[in-house]
Amino acid sequence: MRIKVIVPITSDLLNEEVRKEVAVYGGTGVEYDVENLDYGPASIECEYDEAMAVPDILYKTQKAAEDGFDGVVIDCFGDPGVKAARELVDIPVCGGFEPSVLLAAGLGQRLGIVTVLPDVVPMLEDLARKMGLHDRVVCIRYVNIPVLELGDKAKLEDALYRQSLEAIEKDGAHVIILGCTGMMGMAANLHNRLKENGYDVPVIDPAWAAIKMVECYVSMQLKHSRLTYRVPREKPHKWWG
Amino acid sequence: MRIKVIVPITSDLLNEEVRKEVAVYGGTGVEYDVENLDYGPASIECEYDEAMAVPDILYKTQKAAEDGFDGVVIDCFGDPGVKAARELVDIPVCGGFEPSVLLAAGLGQRLGIVTVLPDVVPMLEDLARKMGLHDRVVCIRYVNIPVLELGDKAKLEDALYRQSLEAIEKDGAHVIILGCTGMMGMAANLHNRLKENGYDVPVIDPAWAAIKMVECYVSMQLKHSRLTYRVPREKPHKWWG
Amino acid sequence: MRIKVIVPITSDLLNEEVRKEVAVYGGTGVEYDVENLDYGPASIECEYDEAMAVPDILYKTQKAAEDGFDGVVIDCFGDPGVKAARELVDIPVCGGFEPSVLLAAGLGQRLGIVTVLPDVVPMLEDLARKMGLHDRVVCIRYVNIPVLELGDKAKLEDALYRQSLEAIEKDGAHVIILGCTGMMGMAANLHNRLKENGYDVPVIDPAWAAIKMVECYVSMQLKHSRLTYRVPREKPHKWWG
Amino acid sequence: MRIKVIVPITSDLLNEEVRKEVAVYGGTGVEYDVENLDYGPASIECEYDEAMAVPDILYKTQKAAEDGFDGVVIDCFGDPGVKAARELVDIPVCGGFEPSVLLAAGLGQRLGIVTVLPDVVPMLEDLARKMGLHDRVVCIRYVNIPVLELGDKAKLEDALYRQSLEAIEKDGAHVIILGCTGMMGMAANLHNRLKENGYDVPVIDPAWAAIKMVECYVSMQLKHSRLTYRVPREKPHKWWG
Amino acid sequence: MRIKVIVPITSDLLNEEVRKEVAVYGGTGVEYDVENLDYGPASIECEYDEAMAVPDILYKTQKAAEDGFDGVVIDCFGDPGVKAARELVDIPVCGGFEPSVLLAAGLGQRLGIVTVLPDVVPMLEDLARKMGLHDRVVCIRYVNIPVLELGDKAKLEDALYRQSLEAIEKDGAHVIILGCTGMMGMAANLHNRLKENGYDVPVIDPAWAAIKMVECYVSMQLKHSRLTYRVPREKPHKWWG
Amino acid sequence: MRIKVIVPITSDLLNEEVRKEVAVYGGTGVEYDVENLDYGPASIECEYDEAMAVPDILYKTQKAAEDGFDGVVIDCFGDPGVKAARELVDIPVCGGFEPSVLLAAGLGQRLGIVTVLPDVVPMLEDLARKMGLHDRVVCIRYVNIPVLELGDKAKLEDALYRQSLEAIEKDGAHVIILGCTGMMGMAANLHNRLKENGYDVPVIDPAWAAIKMVECYVSMQLKHSRLTYRVPREKPHKWWG
Repeated sequence: MRIKVIVPITSDLLNEEVRKEVAVYGGTGVEYDVENLDYGPASIECEYDEAMAVPDILYKTQKAAEDGFDGVVIDCFGDPGVKAARELVDIPVCGGFEPSVLLAAGLGQRLGIVTVLPDVVPMLEDLARKMGLHDRVVCIRYVNIPVLELGDKAKLEDALYRQSLEAIEKDGAHVIILGCTGMMGMAANLHNRLKENGYDVPVIDPAWAAIKMVECYVSMQLKHSRLTYRVPREKPHKWWG
Repeated sequence: MRIKVIVPITSDLLNEEVRKEVAVYGGTGVEYDVENLDYGPASIECEYDEAMAVPDILYKTQKAAEDGFDGVVIDCFGDPGVKAARELVDIPVCGGFEPSVLLAAGLGQRLGIVTVLPDVVPMLEDLARKMGLHDRVVCIRYVNIPVLELGDKAKLEDALYRQSLEAIEKDGAHVIILGCTGMMGMAANLHNRLKENGYDVPVIDPAWAAIKMVECYVSMQLKHSRLTYRVPREKPHKWWG
Repeated sequence: MRIKVIVPITSDLLNEEVRKEVAVYGGTGVEYDVENLDYGPASIECEYDEAMAVPDILYKTQKAAEDGFDGVVIDCFGDPGVKAARELVDIPVCGGFEPSVLLAAGLGQRLGIVTVLPDVVPMLEDLARKMGLHDRVVCIRYVNIPVLELGDKAKLEDALYRQSLEAIEKDGAHVIILGCTGMMGMAANLHNRLKENGYDVPVIDPAWAAIKMVECYVSMQLKHSRLTYRVPREKPHKWWG
Repeated sequence: MRIKVIVPITSDLLNEEVRKEVAVYGGTGVEYDVENLDYGPASIECEYDEAMAVPDILYKTQKAAEDGFDGVVIDCFGDPGVKAARELVDIPVCGGFEPSVLLAAGLGQRLGIVTVLPDVVPMLEDLARKMGLHDRVVCIRYVNIPVLELGDKAKLEDALYRQSLEAIEKDGAHVIILGCTGMMGMAANLHNRLKENGYDVPVIDPAWAAIKMVECYVSMQLKHSRLTYRVPREKPHKWWG
Repeated sequence: MRIKVIVPITSDLLNEEVRKEVAVYGGTGVEYDVENLDYGPASIECEYDEAMAVPDILYKTQKAAEDGFDGVVIDCFGDPGVKAARELVDIPVCGGFEPSVLLAAGLGQRLGIVTVLPDVVPMLEDLARKMGLHDRVVCIRYVNIPVLELGDKAKLEDALYRQSLEAIEKDGAHVIILGCTGMMGMAANLHNRLKENGYDVPVIDPAWAAIKMVECYVSMQLKHSRLTYRVPREKPHKWWG
Repeated sequence: MRIKVIVPITSDLLNEEVRKEVAVYGGTGVEYDVENLDYGPASIECEYDEAMAVPDILYKTQKAAEDGFDGVVIDCFGDPGVKAARELVDIPVCGGFEPSVLLAAGLGQRLGIVTVLPDVVPMLEDLARKMGLHDRVVCIRYVNIPVLELGDKAKLEDALYRQSLEAIEKDGAHVIILGCTGMMGMAANLHNRLKENGYDVPVIDPAWAAIKMVECYVSMQLKHSRLTYRVPREKPHKWWG
């Protein structure tokens, strides 16, 4: 099984870390190829960023399918371009949000998300509404750290712990979902710290969730429904450049 | 008041008809400027088309704000790029879906949509879910005619009538929303034909709804909330071309 | 275009102020006629008040239609008699609630209402439920000032500001709706004060919203669905007096 | 226990039959007093009828409380004036809709209503929405017989059977609610006929449901919450006549 | 009318108190027979306890039907085995949850539950979801006292008051439901104490609610729908012991 | 990784086929142990059957945890005892329903279930409601074949195809979920047959979904939240036998 991981930012800043993570997460015998964008924004933190990242995500998804990959992970919690990408190809495509929420929904009743910035909260609420699951998402909190500053792991870890605690104690969350695929390597420690403080709750790493979900669909020989995601009709167009 | 109308397709095929329509619809003393895209697909009929149209929609929206327009209509029922566009500018921006559904919701209890193709039905269902109004939308039917073939007015009119009748009689719709901004000049006749057959129901023309909603917001000195639509953060990027 | 504004209280206390407001709000060339009730309570602050105001509202709505008005505004946030009035006439009829919530729903994701008294909160929650939009209304707060004491503008302004701030900071509201048509002349200042404090959120004046919505429907030649609002059947009756 | 039954129509046409029914339904030792309106329409079949019936319903409810009755039944499926009446008095007040739906909800999963006319269907849908139970009401069908023609029992019985069968077979209803308090004496036969045809489903008589619910609240020493239904504030008013 | 009350715990600890209570609650001429389990846990405080109590509850329900009882109360707020029991018999069967929530829903808009332990909160949320009424249940609070320690009435009364106050003031509850049938004899005092402090809200005793609902169904000659609760098919099985 | 598969029926009829299936489905290096019940009904087709199967399911789940298994599949679409089992152990436990619906929800918008008998439809609707996903489940159809007669593969295959076609064409389903874990070996053929007829929709085998979901959770070192599923408190009890 070969899976393409598209990191939808225009630098290769995160590629190495993503490669290391998927080497740990990935299933036996699964091969991962990690790639960033050529065109788009440096990070996705609002609807505008997302819109500008999507064309190249779609190009790279289609390329991955042509290159014989078995599945595609769009490595961003906002699921940018996921629905359009599914129209283009016949292999499973997942972003971070949908798999995280689905896996979390099987582990507990009330889901809490801790993301990066207030800017993305309405987008995530929209995603939850589209899934019909927004009434199980009891809060969408944020650490108030931009994506490209998540590298300060100590600061991030502390902020995640504080927000997760509030999610549990104030909002009644039973499961914590990390709301950015850039929050790599945080889930296990956060889980332990919460457990030591009396809250034995699952913590979902969205990149890991995305990878497992794609592996799962590939192994089950399943792909998205062609009644929800129909093949785009051929038509004239004018692309850039 | 000056309003920019962006027809999000790459030909000027519809511009003249749109100009004529807005001349009829538009408020007294409102000036409309109609423009199509330079980059994107020839029509929007799926998530992929929409994704590829959005970057130029956003560019033209931002340009309109800089050029001093008071509001922007993105003249497509799928509301392509509307949310991202609102992040970019401080003037009202509307597509066709949201205004149509909101105006319809004030006229009757059960809303029926008649759109072009099955391909867009899931997108429209998502839009209704995001608004939290999907349980008032009792059906999303389609005439099975692609956008660029809507020019055959007689065929369109007939198909719209048949589907509207089914929406009313089978699905219990009380209001009909035309589900494509390309269905210009159809609403009045369709309303009359339905009324003659015993169903005095409003028929919403989505382009007209979009224009009126933008006029309404401008005249009330209202624009979108900056808590839902925050200003995009400055960051490096690589655009095409 | 001629629009009748029914102020559903038995004194002419507010007529002059309403006349001044609609002179500012109203569209070019639209003529407004403002009238209060002959029978009913001095103000509407509960289900009982509303019930007792409705018969004369209906009488005056029917009269307005016979007198050739093009639309009717029932100038109260509780939408008293709106549904019954629509059954009686073939011109658009709006109260304050529905237009405010619909216009607000096009401007931001999470709506907060600030009304007069706790007494009306359950009625407003019912109205939101009937529209199917109650899960977008994140709070219904109140300034705890009766309708007939809203004349103390300084007190009102301050109370509105405090409650709007709580709506934003505690309940996560993104749009503020003033929950009484008697809160005239407050929206612009409140918007500015919130914006100066970091919250650039729209503030909806419900009387203005009602007027614009009726103008909008009239200009679009739309009226309510006769499948939702059927013509009352002729039958014997015994009226008062 | 003494319970006032208000038949909200201006003739005494139904009083005798109602008296006979409650003599059968009523609890041991409960005394029922049946009364019709002095002012209002001859029957309630739309929002307008309801609005015009409510003032006298409220007057008679208040009078009943003053006369020492322990509870009030407003004998109409549309629950006219029920919420306003609860504000006025400190004894339980029920119409037909709410008790029927609540009792039905404890008997099966999917509720079907069979009412008189299409005119009232939107009102009933609103009532179900206000209760938050509209997604358990799978259909609201009608026999297309006006209230004042329900006296043709054979015709009614047949129409009820046909619509109930459709509710079960087409809409998947598991419980049938008779949607008019004028459908007296129908429930048992309808239940038997459906059972003989393979559908052992409960059939709820709304007048009976109303009476039992009021008896139940009185016997439990419960009345409505004064946080939902606050006492109307004293204020000037001008009544008719 | 003869009603069987099954106290689903393996001691007779509560039988006498239940007998006394139903003697007070019960309708005129209704005979109650109180019985505890032979097999199961000492109390029901989680899904596991419930699962282990259900087989004997079902056995005793079936026995009650064979013995000619007219209805069965399963005297536990978690409604253990209620749905399975309804499949087995043709007489009304109620637990504590469903009747309490239905009766409460007729008394006010926003329902607050105060139960025993955090362990049961997710079960109660599930029950509310199954009824489709979870959006009217605004909070599920707990006194943090295990079922078998509810005998300390002074402690219980105080904890119930504190939690009810929070339910009203923090969560906006308008009706209080006691969330354990072991909280006998508390409702009236709690109601009075809340009323003295300005909150005239109904307090529902779930055992009383269960008894009244069964009485009500029996007196109306109603039982559950056989389309929701079909008769179990005959099949081989291996029981314990 | 070692996973226990509990087939919750009292015969070993299906064990061999289940073993063969999991040998095909199971992940590389995962070991499956298949076991049936000692006590319970011959098949689970209603609430009563389920209730009587659960005690031994719980016993065997606890035993599996003590024996060092890494996860448990309760091999039934009704998720019998899943919630109680999670309280008992600290390893992932899945039935068929929840994993199927979650995986399906990631593949298309509108989910259709085809199960065995009308008897289980209300139970499945309850499960969907508990997950908060019932408005994405557009139909629950049945082949009208009891579990123990599913061995007639030709008959089953044909009935599944017919019902799936109706689910797609009449109810608008985009994904098909097989609603019984006894429908082994059907998914691939059914998918192909639907695809050949123009409907390229995923078909979910619930046993396969359960196995993959447990593997997924184990590999991600995740288990259920201890805030949703708390450890049962120690207490006296009397078990059977």
